[in-house]
Amino acid sequence: MTRRIRIGGAQMGAISRSDSKKEIVDRLIALLRQASEKGCELVVFPELALSTFFPRWYAERDGMDGYFEDGMPNAATLPLFEEARRLGIGFSLGYAELVQEDGRVRRFNTTVLVERNGEIVGKYRKIHLPGHAEYEPERSHQHLEKRYFEVGNTGFQVWDAFGGRVGMAICNDRRWVETYRVMGLQDVELILIGYNTPVADSLSGESETLRMFHNHLTMQAGAYQNSTWVVGVAKAGVEDGHRLMGGSVIVAPTGEIVAQAMTEGDELIVADCDLDRCRYYKSHIFNFAAHRRPEFYQRITSQTGVE
Amino acid sequence: MTRRIRIGGAQMGAISRSDSKKEIVDRLIALLRQASEKGCELVVFPELALSTFFPRWYAERDGMDGYFEDGMPNAATLPLFEEARRLGIGFSLGYAELVQEDGRVRRFNTTVLVERNGEIVGKYRKIHLPGHAEYEPERSHQHLEKRYFEVGNTGFQVWDAFGGRVGMAICNDRRWVETYRVMGLQDVELILIGYNTPVADSLSGESETLRMFHNHLTMQAGAYQNSTWVVGVAKAGVEDGHRLMGGSVIVAPTGEIVAQAMTEGDELIVADCDLDRCRYYKSHIFNFAAHRRPEFYQRITSQTGVE
Repeated sequence: MTRRIRIGGAQMGAISRSDSKKEIVDRLIALLRQASEKGCELVVFPELALSTFFPRWYAERDGMDGYFEDGMPNAATLPLFEEARRLGIGFSLGYAELVQEDGRVRRFNTTVLVERNGEIVGKYRKIHLPGHAEYEPERSHQHLEKRYFEVGNTGFQVWDAFGGRVGMAICNDRRWVETYRVMGLQDVELILIGYNTPVADSLSGESETLRMFHNHLTMQAGAYQNSTWVVGVAKAGVEDGHRLMGGSVIVAPTGEIVAQAMTEGDELIVADCDLDRCRYYKSHIFNFAAHRRPEFYQRITSQTGVE
Repeated sequence: MTRRIRIGGAQMGAISRSDSKKEIVDRLIALLRQASEKGCELVVFPELALSTFFPRWYAERDGMDGYFEDGMPNAATLPLFEEARRLGIGFSLGYAELVQEDGRVRRFNTTVLVERNGEIVGKYRKIHLPGHAEYEPERSHQHLEKRYFEVGNTGFQVWDAFGGRVGMAICNDRRWVETYRVMGLQDVELILIGYNTPVADSLSGESETLRMFHNHLTMQAGAYQNSTWVVGVAKAGVEDGHRLMGGSVIVAPTGEIVAQAMTEGDELIVADCDLDRCRYYKSHIFNFAAHRRPEFYQRITSQTGVE
């Protein structure tokens, strides 16, 4: 018996700060219905799929609270949850999360995993926040995730869902080898990643081509080196004057890209992902128990920066 | 002031079990002289550059001792060391090492780093030994590194050499994210890797194309994710009836391949490697001190296999 699951990567085009929540959720529902027509059982939406990428602007730390969700589902997103349950499709959805926790207001960059029955079965809060916390005048645009979000406190968990072992990560997490490895050590078979990544980095001067290469390189290596499927889904296009890269992909455990978006707009990519394809690599070349040597890896957990 | 070093990757074609040590060392010297003519300051030779890849055959554990070196330099390799010192070129060289240590005979898959003055400044013994320790009849060829070698006991060190921070790894090490990361945490700027990799894997049935893709994918990701140059050099070609892949490369800290071998024979590839090119990534996107979160990485060192 194969464990084949048809997955849709629901890339989104730009979301303007003037778009209403209803307009945004209607777009998510339209993508969900497309996925249903194509027989998908799971749809992956991007990071911060309910708003523009607001960390590009400087404000007070609570000045962006209007872009945050204080419950999930809430009134605005309930139609999405209900339609997904009606269609029998699960999904992952990224959003800015405002929560009362430990006696104070906390803000996270969050993704939830929703099973086909509409139940939230997993929540991940972004750990590798990129950018900076204060205004940096030398940048053409800001990247203030370290200002508006706290470092996530969920760890990299893996859930039994959709007939397999499913993990999640968000945007910059995909560049870090530890993200994939911590999940690989929990036998992950499918990692869902949403991202919002500017086409330009005003400090590096890297070309668009190089930045797209890095986007794919890190997900392909993460998939191969941990014998797992990876689904990476962008919010893309020109958002309030700032262009985000597309390039959403579904990557097999071989590291090969088996589906890829061709636009910077709302676009569904689809692949049949056989979770049993992970087995060969997990039991041979990447048989961790047979080959790993943690006694020589201690620096990875005993130090943070270069020493 | 830039820290630019011209590096040669000295890919070797096949070495037959009937080749004499003198014939082999003469080929190494010929490659060294080519590198000198092209202005190289450092030449990278493959893994097990002094013999055929003998772990493909089954024998008693000491039955391959004839392929091992019991000193470095020794009578056979001294001409290489002397010519390199005369030319003012440093090199790294992989070989099977037989040593009396801890009161017993020990065998390692080893690489030494030799400075331009002929002095051995670093030694690395392979940690990630692939394959198996006993005969496996279902394989078209054996891969008995776990039989003939012990796991290396040097750790992944980084040396001040050639004006930068230099580390080494061997063959299968390049597929493991921990290899690069442990050196990255020591501010590595240049990683030298030799390999002997069969074109075919009789168990996986992977295509040559896919296997070459994996060869490059892991080194490119390792370079980018740790902001370091990587030089990967093959022993290639049909060796005693078994074909080894070529594809030797020099990879920039951007993950881009800047030089690549085109043959499966003795072939020198050359690139000018500016070690200061590592700085931008090390201080921004891969600023470990700013972005890493070891509190969530504990599984990487606390467990070996999947749990």
